[in-house]
Amino acid sequence: MTQSVADVIAKLREHLKKISHYQEAVALLEWDARTGAPRKGAGLRAQTIGTLAAELFRLQTAPELAEWLERLTEPAVYAELSQVDQAIVRETKRDYDLLAKIPADRFAAYKVLTSEAQSVWEEAKAASDFARFAPYLEQIVAMKLEFIDHWGYGEHKYDALLDQYEPGMTVRRLDELFGALRTHTVALVQEIVQCGRKPDTGILARPFDVGQQRALSIAMLQRIGYDFEAGRLDETVHPFMTTINRYDNRVTTKFVPDDLRPSLFGTIHEGGHALYEQAIDPSFIGTPLATGTSMGIHESQSRFYENMIGRSLPFWEGAYGELVRLFPAQFADVPVYDFYCAINAVEPSLIRIEADEVTYNLHIMVRYDLEKALIEGDLRVADLPEAWRAKMQEYLGIVPPNDALGVLQDVHWSGGDFGYFPSYALGNLYAAQFRATLQREVPGVWEEVRRGNLGVVKAWLNEKIHRFGKLLTPGDIVQQVTGEPLDARYWTAYLDEKYRPIYGI
Amino acid sequence: MTQSVADVIAKLREHLKKISHYQEAVALLEWDARTGAPRKGAGLRAQTIGTLAAELFRLQTAPELAEWLERLTEPAVYAELSQVDQAIVRETKRDYDLLAKIPADRFAAYKVLTSEAQSVWEEAKAASDFARFAPYLEQIVAMKLEFIDHWGYGEHKYDALLDQYEPGMTVRRLDELFGALRTHTVALVQEIVQCGRKPDTGILARPFDVGQQRALSIAMLQRIGYDFEAGRLDETVHPFMTTINRYDNRVTTKFVPDDLRPSLFGTIHEGGHALYEQAIDPSFIGTPLATGTSMGIHESQSRFYENMIGRSLPFWEGAYGELVRLFPAQFADVPVYDFYCAINAVEPSLIRIEADEVTYNLHIMVRYDLEKALIEGDLRVADLPEAWRAKMQEYLGIVPPNDALGVLQDVHWSGGDFGYFPSYALGNLYAAQFRATLQREVPGVWEEVRRGNLGVVKAWLNEKIHRFGKLLTPGDIVQQVTGEPLDARYWTAYLDEKYRPIYGI
Repeated sequence: MTQSVADVIAKLREHLKKISHYQEAVALLEWDARTGAPRKGAGLRAQTIGTLAAELFRLQTAPELAEWLERLTEPAVYAELSQVDQAIVRETKRDYDLLAKIPADRFAAYKVLTSEAQSVWEEAKAASDFARFAPYLEQIVAMKLEFIDHWGYGEHKYDALLDQYEPGMTVRRLDELFGALRTHTVALVQEIVQCGRKPDTGILARPFDVGQQRALSIAMLQRIGYDFEAGRLDETVHPFMTTINRYDNRVTTKFVPDDLRPSLFGTIHEGGHALYEQAIDPSFIGTPLATGTSMGIHESQSRFYENMIGRSLPFWEGAYGELVRLFPAQFADVPVYDFYCAINAVEPSLIRIEADEVTYNLHIMVRYDLEKALIEGDLRVADLPEAWRAKMQEYLGIVPPNDALGVLQDVHWSGGDFGYFPSYALGNLYAAQFRATLQREVPGVWEEVRRGNLGVVKAWLNEKIHRFGKLLTPGDIVQQVTGEPLDARYWTAYLDEKYRPIYGI
Repeated sequence: MTQSVADVIAKLREHLKKISHYQEAVALLEWDARTGAPRKGAGLRAQTIGTLAAELFRLQTAPELAEWLERLTEPAVYAELSQVDQAIVRETKRDYDLLAKIPADRFAAYKVLTSEAQSVWEEAKAASDFARFAPYLEQIVAMKLEFIDHWGYGEHKYDALLDQYEPGMTVRRLDELFGALRTHTVALVQEIVQCGRKPDTGILARPFDVGQQRALSIAMLQRIGYDFEAGRLDETVHPFMTTINRYDNRVTTKFVPDDLRPSLFGTIHEGGHALYEQAIDPSFIGTPLATGTSMGIHESQSRFYENMIGRSLPFWEGAYGELVRLFPAQFADVPVYDFYCAINAVEPSLIRIEADEVTYNLHIMVRYDLEKALIEGDLRVADLPEAWRAKMQEYLGIVPPNDALGVLQDVHWSGGDFGYFPSYALGNLYAAQFRATLQREVPGVWEEVRRGNLGVVKAWLNEKIHRFGKLLTPGDIVQQVTGEPLDARYWTAYLDEKYRPIYGI
């Protein structure tokens, strides 16, 4: 006897709700392990996470899920579903295929490999010894290629990886976007370096009381509209935002006693991620739609808040009084414009996560070119360090003195996260295009920001982007919000508009 | 084909390990909900806990568990098991029977009833309106009686409930223990009240900076030997200790700005619980043996540290300098003996959780008499408030002016926790008997405590009690440590020895 479509949908939703409960448990176990859990309990905690993750995997690859999806993706059935149910089926199928198309034993082997590889990478980085890491990276690349065959791909193998983080994105499209961007950025950075003007960044690298830094982080989150009744702020080594549940989106930050920047901008960045998750349509709770639509769109929100708001002049014209109140000794004598120039200092540097807004995309393009070449078979792992140095020279004009400051600096590859890096740059591009639309649709927006009324910005993003969660794909969102596909010219225009005045070029 | 016993044991242990992982997850989800989780996420959190608790229940009542237990409890098989495996089988069977003997639908109905009853109790308490709560309590009692029939019992129905918290304890034994105790305590309290001497407790109820209170709580935990690398201290409305895993035993406390006692003694009390869990044999990890052997023995450890150490003169002769350093304005002019008398002031009062060490057991006996009568059919729910007032008058000489300060004060009955209250009094009795043995076996112990060397106390408790976890039953522990069964005379002697000098009687 065939079940009714309504019955199948009901069963699917019940199953997805259960998955969401396991996701909450695992998210909390991990958040706790990274924030305040005691050191000695870490080993047992890892086992507990392992047990729950295994059950989550079982739920996500359950045979009944395959049956329901098969039924619901029949064209005649699918066409009759509501928009929400269609999106739920689409996203559930995406998640299912990603896991279920890989033979279980190979997936388990991959988990073991990447877990080991991350430990080895840590040692290799500490010793600046790429050769120690290379055999693991070779195995990871080989396994990724094996998985790509299972998943299937279009024009490029690397497309299969891109699609996992940015649905619909392809090598063809990305080459197009990054091409013009690179030419423009390399030229702009050269102009900046050669102009000779250097903002005094020393005002940001002085002793800053950690208690006051915490107060500043809280004030900044309140200013952008973060809901502390649906989240909290904690301290970690590597800041992150995690969604425990729809009404519990936690931000972490890092307090460096003699540098204000990590906590100030780290907090605003993660706060941007949190604002996204705190505004998703509550009717999506318990479904795969209740999260950001892609890594790139998510990053567009964090980078928008960190850089386009948090490093803008109007924002600080409104917020500077608060900063001076918290740190009078450091800033009472510093004009707001000097502060603005200092937080926007541009300089080619070796480490991606410390890079400024302008050079940041170049770091991404170095990684994109190299990982694409690895996956497409155009580069051997053994040749990576040399290729890294060559790309750094070409794009940023500097070369790392060792591999710890070069090819070994990021954790991503040791975890098998190929295809992830481009999201960061896409976030910048999306953000600039959204920003242009915001300015057009809300003409007085910067005056509001200057007056400390960030609510208009949040309301616009909530309405245009956040509330949709995964109901809309990244491509749909950009088209719907801005009226056109993603276009890198908004970003290059933004850089020119912002940085030429700062550097007088 | 019959499986080998070794195979069955291996499967059982694997299953128990999985259970322990779910217990860790649920414990963390609950700890987080009670400490720092944001308010708005509470509803979804409750659902997540529900899903994981249901899976935990499924694991604890799995049919294969019944098969394994049946095999392992065959006398010839059981006799050949190691002591540890015997204890694992015994404790697993206890847990299994408790859940699996109840029809699943009745257990579910009980969960719904007690969940509702707890909300109704809160309202009834706020309105001091027993009639509102009574119908729920009647249903809970009826359901408990139904469950007792499933579980089975010996001489008294109430024995089945006692045994859940204190294995082996019976009404017959408890009546015996509490009988002499009550006579002695009632008389001692009367002597104290009539002697006319009253320690100045005002020195404890003044403004105490919360940050300094936190520092004091940390210092006290460090002093008794709590391992902060296997735990942490947080703030809650109702302090508790929770074991997340064997190496993660968390303490919470409550800071009252104008009263030092709740945080100071609450922290030491919960710290006592934590010291127990932090010292259980690590080879028991992942089995039911990796926790305290009973509520009564657990309470003996918390009460020992709170009252027999934390309210002793030698302890404060060693620790008073630290207290004065943290609160010079409050204590610089107060002699340590006056402080000692103030923290040991005795006065009949209405609320159990605020009661002093001497009157505390009388509060327990009021509850024991009443809940025993309810279960044995000698008292109707409707008559409880009047019976409460009569018992309070009889044992403590005071009568609550309303039910909020009387029969409605405790949460336990609304959650169905009949048989739990006696554990608190048993904790006192066990503690006094252990204390007597400690003094005999470590003659210089109080001099060590005076010198701040609490390590000798902890080492003795670790060696004699803590490490055994649930390997030994409460009865075995008392016999093994003290050489005799539980005897209330150690407690009455302790009260005389401590309180007669304070009150000059």
